[in-house]
Amino acid sequence: MIIDIHGHYTTEPPVLQAFRDKQLAGLADAMRKPATTDLGITDDDLVKSVQPQLKNQRDRGSDLTIFSPRAAGMAHHVGTEATGVEWSRISNDLIHRICQLLPDNFVAVGQLPQHPGAPPKNCIPELERIVSELGFVGVNLNPDPSGGYWTDPPLTDRHWYPIYEKLVELEVPAMIHVSSSCNPNFHHTGAHYINADTTAFMQLIQGNLFKDFPTLKFVIPHGGGAVPFHWGRYRGLAQEMKKPLLGDHLLKNVFFDTCVYHLPGIELLAKVIPVDNILFASEMLGAVKGIDPETGHHYDDTKRYIDQVKALGAADRHKIFEGNARRVYPRLDRLLAKRGHPGKQTHKEVA
Amino acid sequence: MIIDIHGHYTTEPPVLQAFRDKQLAGLADAMRKPATTDLGITDDDLVKSVQPQLKNQRDRGSDLTIFSPRAAGMAHHVGTEATGVEWSRISNDLIHRICQLLPDNFVAVGQLPQHPGAPPKNCIPELERIVSELGFVGVNLNPDPSGGYWTDPPLTDRHWYPIYEKLVELEVPAMIHVSSSCNPNFHHTGAHYINADTTAFMQLIQGNLFKDFPTLKFVIPHGGGAVPFHWGRYRGLAQEMKKPLLGDHLLKNVFFDTCVYHLPGIELLAKVIPVDNILFASEMLGAVKGIDPETGHHYDDTKRYIDQVKALGAADRHKIFEGNARRVYPRLDRLLAKRGHPGKQTHKEVA
Repeated sequence: MIIDIHGHYTTEPPVLQAFRDKQLAGLADAMRKPATTDLGITDDDLVKSVQPQLKNQRDRGSDLTIFSPRAAGMAHHVGTEATGVEWSRISNDLIHRICQLLPDNFVAVGQLPQHPGAPPKNCIPELERIVSELGFVGVNLNPDPSGGYWTDPPLTDRHWYPIYEKLVELEVPAMIHVSSSCNPNFHHTGAHYINADTTAFMQLIQGNLFKDFPTLKFVIPHGGGAVPFHWGRYRGLAQEMKKPLLGDHLLKNVFFDTCVYHLPGIELLAKVIPVDNILFASEMLGAVKGIDPETGHHYDDTKRYIDQVKALGAADRHKIFEGNARRVYPRLDRLLAKRGHPGKQTHKEVA
Repeated sequence: MIIDIHGHYTTEPPVLQAFRDKQLAGLADAMRKPATTDLGITDDDLVKSVQPQLKNQRDRGSDLTIFSPRAAGMAHHVGTEATGVEWSRISNDLIHRICQLLPDNFVAVGQLPQHPGAPPKNCIPELERIVSELGFVGVNLNPDPSGGYWTDPPLTDRHWYPIYEKLVELEVPAMIHVSSSCNPNFHHTGAHYINADTTAFMQLIQGNLFKDFPTLKFVIPHGGGAVPFHWGRYRGLAQEMKKPLLGDHLLKNVFFDTCVYHLPGIELLAKVIPVDNILFASEMLGAVKGIDPETGHHYDDTKRYIDQVKALGAADRHKIFEGNARRVYPRLDRLLAKRGHPGKQTHKEVA
């Protein structure tokens, strides 16, 4: 089974964005508030809207996508905390419906109603709801709810601890994923996303978060930002700070996805990051949808790159494509086991 | 000749930092202002202070370091614009003296008295002074004078044009280099520096700056931040924005140094970035001073990595170690030619 752990719902029916417009317009003029949160999106609309993803799964050879609301759409810095709560519920509910309609293709990860300056614990009711009631297997956690001004504390600050306690209790990992940028210095997918990945990893080096939360798991997307390219720098900085080796300090808890859109990048990732810490992902339909003229294939068809890395054996590939995802997302593992995909046994057979 | 284009004066005599303390203390209590800007640092003090750099040059086999004030020390966000002007002058003057005392080992690059929110044109007098009077061959330009809050406009904004006009007129390149971070989210050498490199490159993709300044040259340090690792993403984003191929859009004007502290990173850099755009640098004594237990050598002994990249031929190495630096820093080229290093001829012989 090939699990793509990083897909966002970027093909939403237009009525969702129209609702968001009205919701935000309502802040300026109460007359413009949407009359209802029932968007009238039918099951047929939903199934139709994800045909591009289903086609990519078929064409590229993946089975299951871990699916969450559009990352840039979360926009935690926009509106009020109350509009954010409503927006998160609606966005998560659509994901839930898609995953109910197409359970073999999608498993749900949620958005949290974070807000700049607001205590992360305010997100716990929605986190509880999507995991305990709706069966989501993970969440996206925005390390910069300000949208590019970085005015909240680092991820290692106690500010964030209530949400970590709940993540641990519920056994769900968090993907550390920023949203859109309202800072003109940062293009969202070209700078803000990648910077946030790099920043989060460095914060974790500086802190000792996993001493307090030994079972907490973070996925750093986009191949870990700049981290694998600068792996020597990070090993050296940790060493100067008298931290343990990164393998002991962070790599029981921190994982990287494969959203790196060229073969040399994936080769580097596979060379420097232990195979147990790499999870297959393509972010489709995401930041870079075009065809690479140098290969004739889509930039984000990342499975092709992994298939070409000669140093990876069958057991390694199994870990990257399935085993690691099932270890990092235990609720996904249990879901798949219940559906007749034994997972760990398969893992052992291959290894 | 082996030219290291990225060295900061990180071994300053303590009296310099004592002066800075007094200068900043003077903002709170005028009684504490330093009585004089004459720090009493003798030539012997200066020569003694750079013995670690000279030892590294000998041990590691480089000849000449392009030397600028401590990057984190610039701290453009600290104090007032007036203290910044004074601090830049003093910092640049020390670099000038070192380069006069040890002209075979050091060539000077300057710091600019930038200040958050202040027009970059205010830096022109100091830029004129260090280049025209003191013979500096380049400057460090901070794309975020706020120190981690990114409150000034992107590098492609007309806000920056007066300084670009002067750089072009004086024929000096700018290294795009942030300073320390006052944002607790960003470790300076582990996140802020790398993020700034990535951010600057993405800003340049979005804009068309080199249409307006076809001869302006930027060096992006630390191997270009995350850019080479995500080269596919950047090619793909440029393509979606209908920009020319990156080679045409940026690579006549934008160059990357080799401050990447492990072999796989340097291998990737050499694989995806054209050899004409790579300039040797080690940032010594910089961010990562330790010894890598995996190799037994210093992380920042980057020449060793380049020496190990099998794909690079003799002509490539000559470009990386000397030729490209002389092309990007024309005043350095002329200086060396005057001193009997012909450069271009050597280049042709090797090629």
